[in-house]
Amino acid sequence: MTRNLLNCNMSQTFGSVGCLKLSCRFILCTGTNINIGGKLAAKHYTIRSNNFLFDTVVCDNGYSANKAIHVRHSLIQKRLFFYSTLCTKEAILSGETDRYNGVWVDMTKNSLSEDDLTKVLLASLEAWKKDKIKAVWLQVPLSRGTVFSVSSKFGFQFHHAEGEKALLYLWMNTQQESRIPIFATHQVGVSGMAVRDDTKEVLVVKDKNRPFQLWKFPGGLSDLGEDIAATAEREVFEETGVKTEYQSVLAFRQQHKPPGAFGRSDLYVICRLKPLTYELNPCQEEIESCRWMSLEELKSEVQATSLTHIMAELVLYGLRHGFQQVDITSYQMASIYKGLKFHIFHRPFGS
Amino acid sequence: MTRNLLNCNMSQTFGSVGCLKLSCRFILCTGTNINIGGKLAAKHYTIRSNNFLFDTVVCDNGYSANKAIHVRHSLIQKRLFFYSTLCTKEAILSGETDRYNGVWVDMTKNSLSEDDLTKVLLASLEAWKKDKIKAVWLQVPLSRGTVFSVSSKFGFQFHHAEGEKALLYLWMNTQQESRIPIFATHQVGVSGMAVRDDTKEVLVVKDKNRPFQLWKFPGGLSDLGEDIAATAEREVFEETGVKTEYQSVLAFRQQHKPPGAFGRSDLYVICRLKPLTYELNPCQEEIESCRWMSLEELKSEVQATSLTHIMAELVLYGLRHGFQQVDITSYQMASIYKGLKFHIFHRPFGS
Repeated sequence: MTRNLLNCNMSQTFGSVGCLKLSCRFILCTGTNINIGGKLAAKHYTIRSNNFLFDTVVCDNGYSANKAIHVRHSLIQKRLFFYSTLCTKEAILSGETDRYNGVWVDMTKNSLSEDDLTKVLLASLEAWKKDKIKAVWLQVPLSRGTVFSVSSKFGFQFHHAEGEKALLYLWMNTQQESRIPIFATHQVGVSGMAVRDDTKEVLVVKDKNRPFQLWKFPGGLSDLGEDIAATAEREVFEETGVKTEYQSVLAFRQQHKPPGAFGRSDLYVICRLKPLTYELNPCQEEIESCRWMSLEELKSEVQATSLTHIMAELVLYGLRHGFQQVDITSYQMASIYKGLKFHIFHRPFGS
Repeated sequence: MTRNLLNCNMSQTFGSVGCLKLSCRFILCTGTNINIGGKLAAKHYTIRSNNFLFDTVVCDNGYSANKAIHVRHSLIQKRLFFYSTLCTKEAILSGETDRYNGVWVDMTKNSLSEDDLTKVLLASLEAWKKDKIKAVWLQVPLSRGTVFSVSSKFGFQFHHAEGEKALLYLWMNTQQESRIPIFATHQVGVSGMAVRDDTKEVLVVKDKNRPFQLWKFPGGLSDLGEDIAATAEREVFEETGVKTEYQSVLAFRQQHKPPGAFGRSDLYVICRLKPLTYELNPCQEEIESCRWMSLEELKSEVQATSLTHIMAELVLYGLRHGFQQVDITSYQMASIYKGLKFHIFHRPFGS
């Protein structure tokens, strides 16, 4: 167990104190009333009192640290008294400040006990308050249970968490409403209408394990970082075995708190795809049935939603008058953030 | 500290055993090799061994429980031997099963120690594995640090977390890839182009505290559960003091991992708004400057992005040829999920 969150190397400030070389990786100095006590653990010695705590006293002369510390007690006491004042500033968690005057602290390597963390966090929050820090962010791995329970007592909350990592935050300004932005609010689902111009048919599926047995367009959730067009092509292929090429967005839907979205909202984007293959090879696990259905049939199919009917009508209109009448087209542009690109979707227009 | 996660009332199965009435709120029976030991704590008595653990033995005849348990040792031993077999099923965490064969366990009221939780979770996972449970979900409050550190050892991960609550999960089927859906992947930002038909001007702002000093359309992130149209009207009013009425969506942009999105993606929707008031009353905290700018000026304004130029062109086209040429219109529909509604956006089309 190393405590390398704070690096206040006491070797340099103390030098060698007789047979004891002090090499403190962590030091909390909230007072000068020093009562030394502790117990031996291999080469490492921990000294605690109500007002003074430091860790990792390395005794490198072969003496038992336990013995040595008693021998040199009076000398250490004087020196600690002096240096404790100098070191007060190091008593807080170290972090990086962002441009909104927030402090970010990585707790990954922190292994303080519940008591020690409570003291350090208290001292840190006092210092940050004086510095007019607006928000404190703690990056905490799942395994560090102590950090969660201690932070909770100080009013920290989850901002978000995923996999092994959580981000906790505390809004410091009690006079002002929190300006912490909420974490992602929407899942994005994409479905693909693979339209055959020749037969005026579209690819439809019935899902397995769903409460409603309805014909729908194959589709699913976007992976993190996946473009809308890519999700449409991937999901149609995974569910039906049909290869397609993305053409345009035809419609999108915003729905709040649908089942399965963990209390978030859903943006469901319906794309128009050009089929490149026609043979059906449905996914055994997800798909109950799969077929090419005429759009005329689909627009009044009983086992389909009103939205599916409307989409069939929209595509039939496109087949009659040209898809430029219904398409929302997209192209890639460079972001103002260096190296980033984005896709912008709008109706094609002339000059 | 009460242990009311499992309610296996031993009073009924044991009845009264001489002077001892057993009232176990929690029982873990993984074996029948009973070695009774423990220490007295007020009226409650805890008995532990490697293979047997139960809690809260209430001695209600006025005798010291410590004394009573020794007196009746042999009798209890026989009865425990018998009932431990019957009670094995109660040894696991209780939860609810969903339609994907996942188990959901609310850990809010669980206050087991690290050691006890480790035992219970181990037994639970073994039982769930036998039952072919596909996924285990733990709902854990921030303050319950122990649950995080113990679950972590069993391979649980964060699915998501917010405020006081986290949801952990474990995919049980090591033979099959996890089918746990990812949590929300997108934040939704909405901006509003408040267009004056008479002067062909649009409302633009410069943000404070931003790396780029550019004219842009007022806007911001959607709150959880807020409709796109509502965000546009709210943000324009908050930032500029101008009241508007939502007309249509003109464009949307998908961008992955922009700064400030916590590693998620951004969907930015640009709406067309009809201004209802014209006086500017910019937000002192967020807005550097704010003005009505001619669209002809904006389409080549140096202090604006290419996307802003394109949007100015799009609206000018709409002013010349009618907004029905550029609008993506929306209307509300009923969802197949009872009581839910959604907005669907697509191009208006005839028959």
